[in-house]
Amino acid sequence: MFDINENELSEIELKELLEHIHHGDKEKLNEVIDNMYPIDIAIALENYEDEEILKFYELVNNELMAAIIEQADEDLQIRIINLFSYKNIVNIFSFMSKDDIADILGNLPINLRKELLKLMKTGDTKEIQVLLGYKEDSAGGIMTTEYIALKGDLTTGDALKKIKTIGPKTEVIETIFVINQSKELVGSADLRDILIASEETKLMDIIKDNIITVNPEVDQEEVSKLVSKYDLKVIAVVNRRNNILGIITVDDIIDVIVEEHTEDILHLAGVSKEESVESSLGTSIKKRLPWLFVNLATAFLASFTVGLFEDAIAQVVALAAAMPIVAGMGGNSGTQALSVVIRGIALGDIELKKGWKKVFKEIALGVINGAATGLITGLILYMKYGNPYLGVIIFVAMIGNLVIAGFFGFLIPLVLDKLGVDPALASAIFLTTATDVFGFFLFLGLAKAFLPLLL
Amino acid sequence: MFDINENELSEIELKELLEHIHHGDKEKLNEVIDNMYPIDIAIALENYEDEEILKFYELVNNELMAAIIEQADEDLQIRIINLFSYKNIVNIFSFMSKDDIADILGNLPINLRKELLKLMKTGDTKEIQVLLGYKEDSAGGIMTTEYIALKGDLTTGDALKKIKTIGPKTEVIETIFVINQSKELVGSADLRDILIASEETKLMDIIKDNIITVNPEVDQEEVSKLVSKYDLKVIAVVNRRNNILGIITVDDIIDVIVEEHTEDILHLAGVSKEESVESSLGTSIKKRLPWLFVNLATAFLASFTVGLFEDAIAQVVALAAAMPIVAGMGGNSGTQALSVVIRGIALGDIELKKGWKKVFKEIALGVINGAATGLITGLILYMKYGNPYLGVIIFVAMIGNLVIAGFFGFLIPLVLDKLGVDPALASAIFLTTATDVFGFFLFLGLAKAFLPLLL
Repeated sequence: MFDINENELSEIELKELLEHIHHGDKEKLNEVIDNMYPIDIAIALENYEDEEILKFYELVNNELMAAIIEQADEDLQIRIINLFSYKNIVNIFSFMSKDDIADILGNLPINLRKELLKLMKTGDTKEIQVLLGYKEDSAGGIMTTEYIALKGDLTTGDALKKIKTIGPKTEVIETIFVINQSKELVGSADLRDILIASEETKLMDIIKDNIITVNPEVDQEEVSKLVSKYDLKVIAVVNRRNNILGIITVDDIIDVIVEEHTEDILHLAGVSKEESVESSLGTSIKKRLPWLFVNLATAFLASFTVGLFEDAIAQVVALAAAMPIVAGMGGNSGTQALSVVIRGIALGDIELKKGWKKVFKEIALGVINGAATGLITGLILYMKYGNPYLGVIIFVAMIGNLVIAGFFGFLIPLVLDKLGVDPALASAIFLTTATDVFGFFLFLGLAKAFLPLLL
Repeated sequence: MFDINENELSEIELKELLEHIHHGDKEKLNEVIDNMYPIDIAIALENYEDEEILKFYELVNNELMAAIIEQADEDLQIRIINLFSYKNIVNIFSFMSKDDIADILGNLPINLRKELLKLMKTGDTKEIQVLLGYKEDSAGGIMTTEYIALKGDLTTGDALKKIKTIGPKTEVIETIFVINQSKELVGSADLRDILIASEETKLMDIIKDNIITVNPEVDQEEVSKLVSKYDLKVIAVVNRRNNILGIITVDDIIDVIVEEHTEDILHLAGVSKEESVESSLGTSIKKRLPWLFVNLATAFLASFTVGLFEDAIAQVVALAAAMPIVAGMGGNSGTQALSVVIRGIALGDIELKKGWKKVFKEIALGVINGAATGLITGLILYMKYGNPYLGVIIFVAMIGNLVIAGFFGFLIPLVLDKLGVDPALASAIFLTTATDVFGFFLFLGLAKAFLPLLL
């Protein structure tokens, strides 16, 4: 038993593990490993040399190796597949669920995938190929085919016997899916209800019949929203004829939510979700540079806007010093509106059709926040440069700037969402362009119009 | 049965529901409601007038009302509590789990909370007051006290009998926690193993003993990381003496992950997590304006930096036009590094102690991305202003700028994390300050040093 402070493997444990591997001490290794979780072993293996991994495999059984590979990250999975013989891999696969095998095969080069499929049992091969046909981030791509479906006319006594037999091979036993004679899903029965009911009760009589299901092509994010909203522990995936194809369990949904979270945060910053702190320099360049070029184009738009007012700046150079304030405040207040709306969209709280009326609140917010920050800015610039009109101009510009920022920050994500574009991905770039160009235009334009007062 | 396209309530259904309420048609109302999920009823109630909610309550039973209130959002919960009589509330509470009652009471004014606690059974009151003592976002704050713990010397046959009796009152029955004579948690038994084992087997002999537990004061985000890493369906909360205090189920963990996600995204943008698209104007001002003042202070730092070079700008006004490019590119590339690192920290992939060495990769990335974007920028400015030295200066400044951005974008979140500050909350503000101040200083400083070449 260990609690949170001890749950990361200590350096000593890791060293001990490696020593047993080097000495080929099967008994001691398995003693240590017995108290470890597969995910922790997988993390340890990541830092091992190829030879050490091979030696480790000689000392453990295929069932444990299967559990470790299931938990390993993609890089380690591919490394192990390339390291082991085809025969060994197929042996290990026989301890894995079909959907996990499909996930691993999906990341391999086509030739290698075909070789491995050839070596498996024909029945398994067919099932895996069906699974490989679903998109990686669809309900079909994340479902498992190991579930319990029983006929509705079974008594709970018989059902319990079946569950005892099939149970060890499935992922979820607390929810039993119930089908009719035409194999259509008609509902689900709680294991607890089956346990409590008298032995002669028919399953049909204790099922919940308005259960939530999804089709295999539904996006995994939609599935995660349903699971989260209805507090589901498992959700059935069915085809058009309402035959059950598989189930998605809540632990896979957690992975989906964490993955989508990562995607949102990275997209907001213009980084692809495939990049992590472990990515190579080359990968990072490939992922980030294109986005920087897009940013460069919008920065030039801002720059050209400033260029329109070079004559005014040449005469009143204080304008140049005030520019970073205009750009910074517009960008920041716009981002505030943006992120509230993006989260609202993600949580299903708002959409363009009904939500656009709330833009008036953002405009009011821009006036108030703009007046508050503009007043301070105006006073400071007045004190620094001794010209009251400069203060008034930045005060007015700041209000306009924050209104523009609120307006665009609020509407851009809603419009993108309506157009079917991920608002987290593209909103920021449009927003900065809008706040920079309009912000500079407003501030420098006002300055130019009242230039004699500033000289 | 309905699938994803039909799972939102249609406008017609909602109208029908309201009609039955207005007509006080108990039978028809309950017919419609029988096929609805409590969360959907709660969402419908949000839009009802107080009178309609009261009328609705007259037509349904307390058990359903309890399920609806459990699923309702905080605003609706408080509204209902204020609307119903104390006696009715206490009746409804008797159908709720203690932790849900504690969550609701935790959001009420102290006086109202005391009144309600007085009306409840003494035993319940005590238990709820213990739960109220835990911080809202700690393991103790999100745990439920309804779990099954059985003694290890029980046979599986006897255990199954107990489970049948207690089962209906607990949240999780697939995992049974097992305690010894001193009531210390010694492990957990899978219901499927209990079902399969022969009736005479002792629980002690089929338990998993290296189970993961947390103390009640552990932060909910830590708990969610453990659940997500180890694919747990339930985690036990224990005190220092290893007595079980409660359990946390995976559906509550999903809520935690979604909540922390919202917090991260909003924090990155300088908005408090308490703001949503539904917040009032006053709330939004209160949440956003303070952060804008912080931003204003840093914008002034950038402005003062520019002010140091006003003489150079006055002579070469093209410098002012190039400033938005310097600021924009520094901010954007820094944010890219920042978000990769913040996600790495959130996923537990990186920390300052080991991770700082990777800053060299960010620096290399800054050189390469800076050279690529700087080359284009230099060429365009050369073509526009006809001065090759201006192009060279912006080329060099861009490389330096992106190196600075990568350096700070990478290290700021790690240092904040080390200091115990949420990196998502404070990183962006430090980063923009750093990239603006150093970026302007480098670019304008270079320009001033080589001013004769630019004239």
